[in-house]
Amino acid sequence: MSIHAVKRSQCHLAWDNSIAPVLRVQSGETITFDCLDASNGQITPESTVDAIKSLVFSQLDQVNGPVFVEGAAPGDTLQIDVLRVAPAPWGWTACIPGFGLLTDEFPEPALKIWELDTENMVTYFDEEKTIRIPLRPFAGEMGVAPGKKGAFSTIPPYATGGALFSIGDGHAVQGDGGTAIETPMNVSVRLTVRKDRPYTKTPHFTTPKVNIQDEGYYCTTGVDADMREATRAAVRNMIDFLCAEHALDRVAAYMLCSVAADLRLHEVVRWVLVLLTSMWLQIWLGGHAELRRAREFAA
Amino acid sequence: MSIHAVKRSQCHLAWDNSIAPVLRVQSGETITFDCLDASNGQITPESTVDAIKSLVFSQLDQVNGPVFVEGAAPGDTLQIDVLRVAPAPWGWTACIPGFGLLTDEFPEPALKIWELDTENMVTYFDEEKTIRIPLRPFAGEMGVAPGKKGAFSTIPPYATGGALFSIGDGHAVQGDGGTAIETPMNVSVRLTVRKDRPYTKTPHFTTPKVNIQDEGYYCTTGVDADMREATRAAVRNMIDFLCAEHALDRVAAYMLCSVAADLRLHEVVRWVLVLLTSMWLQIWLGGHAELRRAREFAA
Repeated sequence: MSIHAVKRSQCHLAWDNSIAPVLRVQSGETITFDCLDASNGQITPESTVDAIKSLVFSQLDQVNGPVFVEGAAPGDTLQIDVLRVAPAPWGWTACIPGFGLLTDEFPEPALKIWELDTENMVTYFDEEKTIRIPLRPFAGEMGVAPGKKGAFSTIPPYATGGALFSIGDGHAVQGDGGTAIETPMNVSVRLTVRKDRPYTKTPHFTTPKVNIQDEGYYCTTGVDADMREATRAAVRNMIDFLCAEHALDRVAAYMLCSVAADLRLHEVVRWVLVLLTSMWLQIWLGGHAELRRAREFAA
Repeated sequence: MSIHAVKRSQCHLAWDNSIAPVLRVQSGETITFDCLDASNGQITPESTVDAIKSLVFSQLDQVNGPVFVEGAAPGDTLQIDVLRVAPAPWGWTACIPGFGLLTDEFPEPALKIWELDTENMVTYFDEEKTIRIPLRPFAGEMGVAPGKKGAFSTIPPYATGGALFSIGDGHAVQGDGGTAIETPMNVSVRLTVRKDRPYTKTPHFTTPKVNIQDEGYYCTTGVDADMREATRAAVRNMIDFLCAEHALDRVAAYMLCSVAADLRLHEVVRWVLVLLTSMWLQIWLGGHAELRRAREFAA
């Protein structure tokens, strides 16, 4: 199967189904995207804090694409297999006034430029103090155009679907709030149309196995302006998954969530707009002698 | 040093500084607690759902103690090293009407009795479907009496201190909401008075290293009736810790949280009362050749 490429310049600044696709692919094909950092090139390895003061907000958080996936129809699920994520050897983190959970306590702009050791996947936060951070690179944005007409900001999460896929916002590593180590990134994904998951209402994802005793996590999400409702949706989506894929009854699935699933809080940086909660479940499937890993897919 | 014991019958039903200690220990001593499950013995391995229907709520969530730790004074931190946690070979999980994040969608009482394999630390959720859950036993309640007079429910989290330590509510494993696998439990802890952590305002804790590339997490908490304020407090407490223990300036500490710390959501079962958020930070300390584990303590 051919490998497609989307260039750095093939990007857009809003989710909008009227934007013409830069590429058409078959379900199951792989695409490599060359993405600039989330400042859209406004910040470079030589930048100082002045770059934060003069940041043009309307140019931030571009995404590369869109890619039209043949055969996708309303109600389908788009499976995204992230095959390779290669950050640049540098990145940046900023305190941007008005942005962030403690912005009132940190009103001054600040900028840190990081040197990234992409071979050992680690960076020094403070060399003198020997404080290092392991890199866990990922694309901060992966999404599809909304079904309804209009241009929607690329920043908040949505519970929408479509088949015009775009990706961007390289992160070398990020916590659950604030800015990440923002970095240019080369990322390869395989896009597959799934007709067999009608219960997938918001993104589901899996996390990699990190050790021999670990089965990885299966995760569902909830998106809402109200934190409690976002959390309830994340739990409800996990119950729907367990009933559909593991043939559990609803009470059993709810109990399984209760004893075994963790809750995480994301996107706190834009608390007043929209919140994203996720529920993380790790169970072991299989007999005594051998552990069989839970089926993996991101949908 | 002698090992002290607190019996199953030596328990109480509220946090209350007027309750006389059952034991006095020196700082640094170890105590073993024999704790009944959180139903206070109302549920047994032979129970049916009728036990949920007739549950006496005022008898739930007892804790064993209190233990007076000599030398503790206001402003000190009590370090709790959990040395051994031994669950019973059985446990229970229930849907209790009016209790839980989706209680409106699960109005009927339900009870599940689990057989726990305490040797392999695993339990079958569904033997036929070969779905297993790894056990991660812990005490659901560890705390101290509040400084102010009065009897306070043992159920919600508080941001209080004191030196009358009690423990209970054995869990074989639990997610972040609902009931756990509730179980009787034998637990040994070492209690140490710390005079050197005046910045500890709510509980901090560490998690164990799970693999060779993992340094474990250092965690701070935030407790508030408002989720956003609880989350802000958790972040602020992590910043205070980093400034005090790693001599970072506040902006650097905030940036470190932004790129490397995760947020978790607990106690969603009692959303309307009080919320507990935690911030999880994993950094690597030490040179290139050798990783040195972050100092570990629960305070």
